[in-house]
Amino acid sequence: MLDVPLEERLPSTQISVADVSDIAQGAAFLGTGGGGDPYIGRLMAEHAIRTYGMPKIIQVDDLHDDAVVFTVAMVGAPTVMLEKGISGDDIDLSINRLAQVIGKMPDAIAPIEIGGINSMLPIAAAARLGLPLVDCDGMGRAFPEIQMVTYNVHGVSCTPAVVVNEHLETVVVETSSAKRAEDIVRVVAIQMGLSVLFSAYPMSGKQIKDFSIRETLSVAAGIGSALRRGRQQGDPVNSLLNYLRSTKYFKHCKVLFDGKITDLERSASKGFSTGHCQVSSVEKPNEWVTIRFQNENLVVEKLGKIIAIVPDLISIVDSESAQPITVESLKFGQRVKVIGTSAAPIMRTPEALAVFGPAAFGFEEEFQKLEEIHQDTE
Amino acid sequence: MLDVPLEERLPSTQISVADVSDIAQGAAFLGTGGGGDPYIGRLMAEHAIRTYGMPKIIQVDDLHDDAVVFTVAMVGAPTVMLEKGISGDDIDLSINRLAQVIGKMPDAIAPIEIGGINSMLPIAAAARLGLPLVDCDGMGRAFPEIQMVTYNVHGVSCTPAVVVNEHLETVVVETSSAKRAEDIVRVVAIQMGLSVLFSAYPMSGKQIKDFSIRETLSVAAGIGSALRRGRQQGDPVNSLLNYLRSTKYFKHCKVLFDGKITDLERSASKGFSTGHCQVSSVEKPNEWVTIRFQNENLVVEKLGKIIAIVPDLISIVDSESAQPITVESLKFGQRVKVIGTSAAPIMRTPEALAVFGPAAFGFEEEFQKLEEIHQDTE
Repeated sequence: MLDVPLEERLPSTQISVADVSDIAQGAAFLGTGGGGDPYIGRLMAEHAIRTYGMPKIIQVDDLHDDAVVFTVAMVGAPTVMLEKGISGDDIDLSINRLAQVIGKMPDAIAPIEIGGINSMLPIAAAARLGLPLVDCDGMGRAFPEIQMVTYNVHGVSCTPAVVVNEHLETVVVETSSAKRAEDIVRVVAIQMGLSVLFSAYPMSGKQIKDFSIRETLSVAAGIGSALRRGRQQGDPVNSLLNYLRSTKYFKHCKVLFDGKITDLERSASKGFSTGHCQVSSVEKPNEWVTIRFQNENLVVEKLGKIIAIVPDLISIVDSESAQPITVESLKFGQRVKVIGTSAAPIMRTPEALAVFGPAAFGFEEEFQKLEEIHQDTE
Repeated sequence: MLDVPLEERLPSTQISVADVSDIAQGAAFLGTGGGGDPYIGRLMAEHAIRTYGMPKIIQVDDLHDDAVVFTVAMVGAPTVMLEKGISGDDIDLSINRLAQVIGKMPDAIAPIEIGGINSMLPIAAAARLGLPLVDCDGMGRAFPEIQMVTYNVHGVSCTPAVVVNEHLETVVVETSSAKRAEDIVRVVAIQMGLSVLFSAYPMSGKQIKDFSIRETLSVAAGIGSALRRGRQQGDPVNSLLNYLRSTKYFKHCKVLFDGKITDLERSASKGFSTGHCQVSSVEKPNEWVTIRFQNENLVVEKLGKIIAIVPDLISIVDSESAQPITVESLKFGQRVKVIGTSAAPIMRTPEALAVFGPAAFGFEEEFQKLEEIHQDTE
């Protein structure tokens, strides 16, 4: 179902095994605090690649309009996934069960989000099933809830959606509302062991072309590469910012704050890791920012003023290495930089903001673009 | 798939529309406090019968060994079902979706339990779908959890199991453990609106023949008829006991206590109505019994001694009318009689007791047959 035979595509579009480590690093940055530990994600993908070979990574335009594309992701607590592991049979079953329900095998796999684990899991899935992986996703970042994706914003049905756990128990959900699917899948995920495989949003190639955020695996590889090269050169944060400025979506980016974590409140409930942290300046102890999160970082406030807000990306990285830090890995006293990055334009439309703008997370403030908040200082 | 064409069966085995009211009354008694309000159940069945005609009610031996039989039931809070109503489309969808998953339409419907609502719902389902209804169930009573059924005791898979709500959202669960199915379905039912349709335990005619409790719809009709006639004659409790003594399974029965409800503690949590009530003698205020329940009445204690325990049946009826009273309808000060009745022999085997004996409800006491506890006084 591909317009262009894979062999004829330009080698430059091909991501290789060596890129997997970079993708995992970059995806952890785009994961904005959520999306799971990139180390675990990378091990999982590399294990699958060693056994099954590197999957073909194709571009959105390589897909035939009628191609069938499935998303696959981990839903739940990454920490628990780490303990339980993923056998691989669960990945296969999530996709095969969805294929059984809709009566068609997928022609390709696409990520639903870009995060430490959910960029890697589709690589493992595509490798295991011998399917191409599409270089795109539905957020250009990570989000805590399954309705928070451009596919849903533009009317792609989230369901049939399949949930599978390590015991190969399956649950198939069908509802006309992606938010309702989220509500149901969340309680099912908790009951099925806190961390589950999730295959959903069966789509056509045309829908992927119209609604996905393109080349985000490539951008993740680029971010990872910039971080790696920057570390060698001793300035990973600038290397990162320079790379981001060269990209199509993420070109507005800024170090919002530099300091250490002086306050951290985090609670795990209803399947989410929710809370806030305070980052205080080392030089000026009276200056600080507060970052609120629900799995992902959602808003940064400084002196009561918002300086970055969802769906724009808020990433916390280690001050020295620029290693992206997940919400679960934040530690009291850590030296960090808080980086704001512009979301893709399709993520900032009124329709998109209705699904994953500030109000969707209970904030009263309107969305304001990062580059508009900081126009004086950019 | 029936061995005997329905038309050739003896008319005596045919339950008629007039019997539906009796079945609802009798099922409320066998429901032992759970299973929902028989009034609501009856209205639902009568509505379906008026529109679609009375379903054929067949005996277990009328089924071909290879016949496909589905159970259908309401799971969750009957009170909520009363508020939400059942459109009928949800009933159809629960069965059609299960048929789709296993690739076969059912040849007949069978009740999973006998209770105020779950004896009536299969009548409505069979009427709507033009299918025969099998005169049997998997408990000869009602139970709070979906694994607590002879079908599961003898290895019939509970799943694929389909959950449907009034918005026609569906969830299909597949697991090798009926207890795990219960865990998953329970949280799904809560998330889907507290009361849902549930079609599960797809079975062969042979399995129904081997593992069901036979003629329990007929017995429910007999109990209802005995209550109705007894009320006309002014002694419904004795009429009821006399009828029970004429049956195959329920022949050991006894008024365990007569008094008024002097203490009542009931809480709704995790999808169940759990608690206890105390019934005190009117003549001797120092004599009382305590009844513990989880949707259904589970144990009766008198002065620290158990005088009836699950899976034997414990029913609370109005002292005068012998109207069965559900746990949800118990009221402080009510005059009641507590009646103990022997469960069917297949419900009292070691295998059965492992699934729904006292230990399954957290009681330390061993099961003791009603007729053995009361052998001196019977």
